[in-house]
Amino acid sequence: MLGSTHGTLTTHSRPARVVACGEQRPHTVHGTSEPHPGGGGQGTDALDRDVSGRPLQAPVPDLDRFFRPESVAVVGASDSAGRPNTGITRQLIAWAERVGARLHPVNPGRAEVFGRPCHATVADLPEAVDLAVLLVGDPLPVIEQLAEAKVKFAVAFASGFAETGERGAAAQDRLAEAVARSGLRLLGPNTNLNAFEKFRTDLDGPAIALITQSGHQGRPVFSLQELGIRLSHWAPTGNEADLETADFLSYFATRPEVGAIAAYVEGLKDGRSFLLAADRAARNKVPVVAVKVGRTETGARTAASHTGKLTGADAVVDAAMRQFGVIRVDGLDELQDTAALLARARKPLAEGVAVYSISGGTGAHFADLATAAGLRLPTLGDAKQTELHQWIPDYLSVANPVDNGGHPVGDWRGPKIIDALLADPSIGVLICPITGPFPPMSDKLAQDLVAAAERTDKLVCVVWGSPVGTEDAYRSTLLGSSRVATFRTFANCITAVRAYLDHHRFAAGYRSPFDDAPRVLSPSARKARALMRPGQQLSEHAAKQLLRAYGIRVPREQLVTSAAAAVRAASLVGYPVVMKASGPQLAHKTELGLVKVGLTSASQIRDAYRELTDIARYEDAPLDGVLVCQMIERGVEMVVGVTRDSLFGPTVTVGLGGVLVEVLRDVAVGVPPFGEDQARAMLGELRGRALLDGVRGAPPADVDALVEVVLRVQRMALELDGELAELDINPLVVLERGQGAVALDALAVCP
Amino acid sequence: MLGSTHGTLTTHSRPARVVACGEQRPHTVHGTSEPHPGGGGQGTDALDRDVSGRPLQAPVPDLDRFFRPESVAVVGASDSAGRPNTGITRQLIAWAERVGARLHPVNPGRAEVFGRPCHATVADLPEAVDLAVLLVGDPLPVIEQLAEAKVKFAVAFASGFAETGERGAAAQDRLAEAVARSGLRLLGPNTNLNAFEKFRTDLDGPAIALITQSGHQGRPVFSLQELGIRLSHWAPTGNEADLETADFLSYFATRPEVGAIAAYVEGLKDGRSFLLAADRAARNKVPVVAVKVGRTETGARTAASHTGKLTGADAVVDAAMRQFGVIRVDGLDELQDTAALLARARKPLAEGVAVYSISGGTGAHFADLATAAGLRLPTLGDAKQTELHQWIPDYLSVANPVDNGGHPVGDWRGPKIIDALLADPSIGVLICPITGPFPPMSDKLAQDLVAAAERTDKLVCVVWGSPVGTEDAYRSTLLGSSRVATFRTFANCITAVRAYLDHHRFAAGYRSPFDDAPRVLSPSARKARALMRPGQQLSEHAAKQLLRAYGIRVPREQLVTSAAAAVRAASLVGYPVVMKASGPQLAHKTELGLVKVGLTSASQIRDAYRELTDIARYEDAPLDGVLVCQMIERGVEMVVGVTRDSLFGPTVTVGLGGVLVEVLRDVAVGVPPFGEDQARAMLGELRGRALLDGVRGAPPADVDALVEVVLRVQRMALELDGELAELDINPLVVLERGQGAVALDALAVCP
Repeated sequence: MLGSTHGTLTTHSRPARVVACGEQRPHTVHGTSEPHPGGGGQGTDALDRDVSGRPLQAPVPDLDRFFRPESVAVVGASDSAGRPNTGITRQLIAWAERVGARLHPVNPGRAEVFGRPCHATVADLPEAVDLAVLLVGDPLPVIEQLAEAKVKFAVAFASGFAETGERGAAAQDRLAEAVARSGLRLLGPNTNLNAFEKFRTDLDGPAIALITQSGHQGRPVFSLQELGIRLSHWAPTGNEADLETADFLSYFATRPEVGAIAAYVEGLKDGRSFLLAADRAARNKVPVVAVKVGRTETGARTAASHTGKLTGADAVVDAAMRQFGVIRVDGLDELQDTAALLARARKPLAEGVAVYSISGGTGAHFADLATAAGLRLPTLGDAKQTELHQWIPDYLSVANPVDNGGHPVGDWRGPKIIDALLADPSIGVLICPITGPFPPMSDKLAQDLVAAAERTDKLVCVVWGSPVGTEDAYRSTLLGSSRVATFRTFANCITAVRAYLDHHRFAAGYRSPFDDAPRVLSPSARKARALMRPGQQLSEHAAKQLLRAYGIRVPREQLVTSAAAAVRAASLVGYPVVMKASGPQLAHKTELGLVKVGLTSASQIRDAYRELTDIARYEDAPLDGVLVCQMIERGVEMVVGVTRDSLFGPTVTVGLGGVLVEVLRDVAVGVPPFGEDQARAMLGELRGRALLDGVRGAPPADVDALVEVVLRVQRMALELDGELAELDINPLVVLERGQGAVALDALAVCP
Repeated sequence: MLGSTHGTLTTHSRPARVVACGEQRPHTVHGTSEPHPGGGGQGTDALDRDVSGRPLQAPVPDLDRFFRPESVAVVGASDSAGRPNTGITRQLIAWAERVGARLHPVNPGRAEVFGRPCHATVADLPEAVDLAVLLVGDPLPVIEQLAEAKVKFAVAFASGFAETGERGAAAQDRLAEAVARSGLRLLGPNTNLNAFEKFRTDLDGPAIALITQSGHQGRPVFSLQELGIRLSHWAPTGNEADLETADFLSYFATRPEVGAIAAYVEGLKDGRSFLLAADRAARNKVPVVAVKVGRTETGARTAASHTGKLTGADAVVDAAMRQFGVIRVDGLDELQDTAALLARARKPLAEGVAVYSISGGTGAHFADLATAAGLRLPTLGDAKQTELHQWIPDYLSVANPVDNGGHPVGDWRGPKIIDALLADPSIGVLICPITGPFPPMSDKLAQDLVAAAERTDKLVCVVWGSPVGTEDAYRSTLLGSSRVATFRTFANCITAVRAYLDHHRFAAGYRSPFDDAPRVLSPSARKARALMRPGQQLSEHAAKQLLRAYGIRVPREQLVTSAAAAVRAASLVGYPVVMKASGPQLAHKTELGLVKVGLTSASQIRDAYRELTDIARYEDAPLDGVLVCQMIERGVEMVVGVTRDSLFGPTVTVGLGGVLVEVLRDVAVGVPPFGEDQARAMLGELRGRALLDGVRGAPPADVDALVEVVLRVQRMALELDGELAELDINPLVVLERGQGAVALDALAVCP
């Protein structure tokens, strides 16, 4: 049960595979020149896919009978002492009794198991069971029997599949194919009993639903029940031969008892199915908190193009989660604390946070960290401060943070102060950090906070800072409350409260990008396809024609093949001009001396033509000619590019150009589909964003034009998916507001 | 006891004050033109101060008799029921008995207190006591009596001083003056009983010594004793009218029982005394871990100069701590966990970390976060992997992280695996994250780890990931071990292990900058002083002369006052030239059009001269002339500056120039004194550091020359302290390696 690393695909291990199991059919149209027309999966048609052939919707799998079956078969059931299956059978019987399911043991070697009649095969079952738990070493031969017996769901515990290497992966592929043919849905292989554990049923309110790719890693979230946090489901997805994280995510997002979804993810099976599930949660305003392993593998998969190198797959996962409101955290403790808060927390009535403590030091320290993390602590109004000073000595600050000096909590003033803070309309969250337990004060304070939380719709958080954690005020008073959110560290409280405010802000403004994703090819695509040269890097001139096909502005320029033509071109283009060698395999032109700028006369142009062709000859670089281009001098240099991610397909990157992208990797990623707001948000993620607003007296840049380029590049990336391996516009010069943006150079590679 | 925010100076609240109390005499020589010659404090002489007049050494205060007095007076002692002093007196009597001190109550209204003879005044005491605890509302009148009675130390609990506002601050100043005259040392006012609490005496090994400016905030560290972590001292410094954080820091750094010092700091009284104390700890290789409040006030104190704005006072505190090896953390939980580990941990035998778990998921997750934080997980050698595979199934990875799949921990294989890992010479630290308690496995694993830790000199860390924390394996087995370091979260374990490796690396290479700090004025100082113009901003020409006085290269240039002279100057300087208006109050010359670059002919120079003087006239900016300068085209643009910090005095900033400093604030701060290594380390802190190594085919820059400029600027800052308010070299162009660095422009402001 403490399973090994599961055999699901990590972002970097293998490209997404086609699995033939219904609604989350991933896309693979590499090398074809037409988008995937519908794909033939059940419940999908041409309108359900975007221009790249990826699905735009996914039905929610009905897993009610998986989690709450009416009848269950246990294949391989045993009651012989000492056999591992005996213990499992016993646990399943207990679980079936708890959930009210009829349980049928199946084992050809036994007449009965634990006093229940045992059947030789699933074909002999007295009814069509909802769920079959397979305790057999090789589940493959059983799948067909299950299908014939109309079993809806199966769980395969067996290990030895993709988690063990190539041979296991092949066995898993065969299993997945059999499952896809069968029509049933399978959890596993290499999963465990977690879904069938004993959940506390005495806890009220919205619950956490848990999805994990490791039983051991999910245990702490499950254990939260011992601290009074309600858990409704646990889906240990194992190797995900069929049912995957996304299936449970979208199912949980539709369950009324689920207040938040917590997920521990090592790898995703398919990017689009994850996005669609996250979209489902976002539409339903169900918060999702996730740990996704893979922070340090960003460098492992180096894409060939320039901007690709700078993003890396983990950055893509990060961006995908951010776009769809999934709250990514790194630690299991943050996962627990954030999910627990989000499960309970209603919509905030105000975004202001009040910090209240019995020590000025504690308040100052907490406020420092909270403010650094982006929480807003409004200064309380004069009237409120006067009100608070009825109960708090005048020399203590009650502006927020509010310091009561300790003594008022011990008497009748304690509840009055808390109620007064909660009554302030600027305050939606009250946080009381109790750093050191001092029973005469902290016990009463904890009681008052619990009582006040019952009287308010606002969020009341407490940090119980003692490392001991056996104190009554913590164990009984605070954890006994379903209305107070209790934390052990400042940092986790701040992370969770931020996630809570972020989630509600996100959910309120969410507009699904799937609704507006392009379903039909634009006229641009036809023009663009004529330029594609499979297996080649396009010349600069061809790459710029590609951009023009999508309405992205390039400098006035002419491709010439003689010095005389260059001089003629210059007078058409307008002096001063830039001249560059243009050829299908040229990169790093500047470093090679294949770019000449600021040419102002015919003689300079003739000299430049000779020099460029000489260098190209010396470098053995075939040219399709020399470009004579309009010189664009003023603007903010950006890079915009397309990179292919193994999970999510084409992604769009945007960054600040020049040394910023080279040295600081200041780029943001967008995972299609995304809309204008998201493209704008990507710019906000850039550390050097202020450059676009104008620094050192420069005018503000045309951000609208930049956003439009990012959206056009997205469209191109989707329409040419499979035909365009990478695109790198570098630089895109963003002119003064109202003046547009111009792609000065571009690199395009066909697969 | 839950005191309010203490009245010590935060970085931003007030400038450092002169207190006349001996060795930590802060510096104030503003407005004088000679460095402070010794200052007349006891134990100091001219050689003990640097050229700025700041002390270069501080005697360690002998606080033995403060913490372990032979005799104690309690002034204001009481045993009347219901009086607050009664409870305190009772606690002090218990404490005196524990430490073996004779306790004398002092109270004019009583003959005896708790059965002990009570004295009317301190003058009546039967012996010269080591320590007097003052439970009186106003300690000021008592100070003189204490001095006459030869009392060594006093503690003042009274509040109502600097923490309450201006009037209180004045009272505190009077108290500080009385203390300084008296010769005794005072803790407080506004402090509490923390120093006299009941410490566990049954714990062995090196201890944590604790310094806090808030009793409530120190409580969690004190509570660590309940988890088996030894604590030796607690210094609640209160308002620090006399004894300050630095005094306890340097004292604790000399105590053999202290393994690590933990500090919670809201404000520092004086920068230099803190640096000298941290230097003492660094020399003695005693780790210091500190929370310093004030992360978000960086923007509050805006210095007038350009680079000053970009650093801010919190960045200065950060830099000072980093230079002297103080490990700064943000959370009290991190303070606890890091100090606890550092107190116990010997010098690492190797820096490699092995991660060992009963779940592949746990190992992968931990390794991901550990690697992201900079820990190194060496891949185990083939022989070691073969050895491990004797006990661990072949399909599980044992490369590091090591996944045992769970079962081997349950039997004889468990200890063998742990010992084999600890025997690997590449491994200095073994970390075992136990995410979910599963008693059949995790209890045995915890026992095996505790036993193995007894057999090794290497560091054994366990993360007990259950949020419940009442499990026996955690409470009894793990916390019962003084050799295993136990954590509750991955993040805190990683933070602490990193601090442990960093500390030992730092301590091994530490060389005190105080040993090499300049003690006598350089000849440059005399030349520089002749250029100073009190209350003025120097002209660019004068600022560059200042740089030249310190051997910092500037372009060849001439200051001219006619077009004809400009043309003559250009032929001396060499074409092409740059021309700039030069005047005492000019800033933002580029924006105003007061810089002309790339001038290649006499006619261009004449035009430029006319234009520059026209603009200056229009802008009403008086000029001392026009500079005709050599044009320096190739190199990396940096900024180097001097800013005055209220705590630490002059600081030196270095950053990448152009948009990088403007938009990204990519600057590093050095707090004098620092040596060449530190100046080099500052460059390493720059995000854009790679620019100096050469990007896009550019040659590596002359980093040695840049370091030399930073050191010369430091010397200038110290020698001209009080005469130079700010300096901003922007840009300093760092040429190709071996070619030096040239200051193209400089701004200097005299106070």
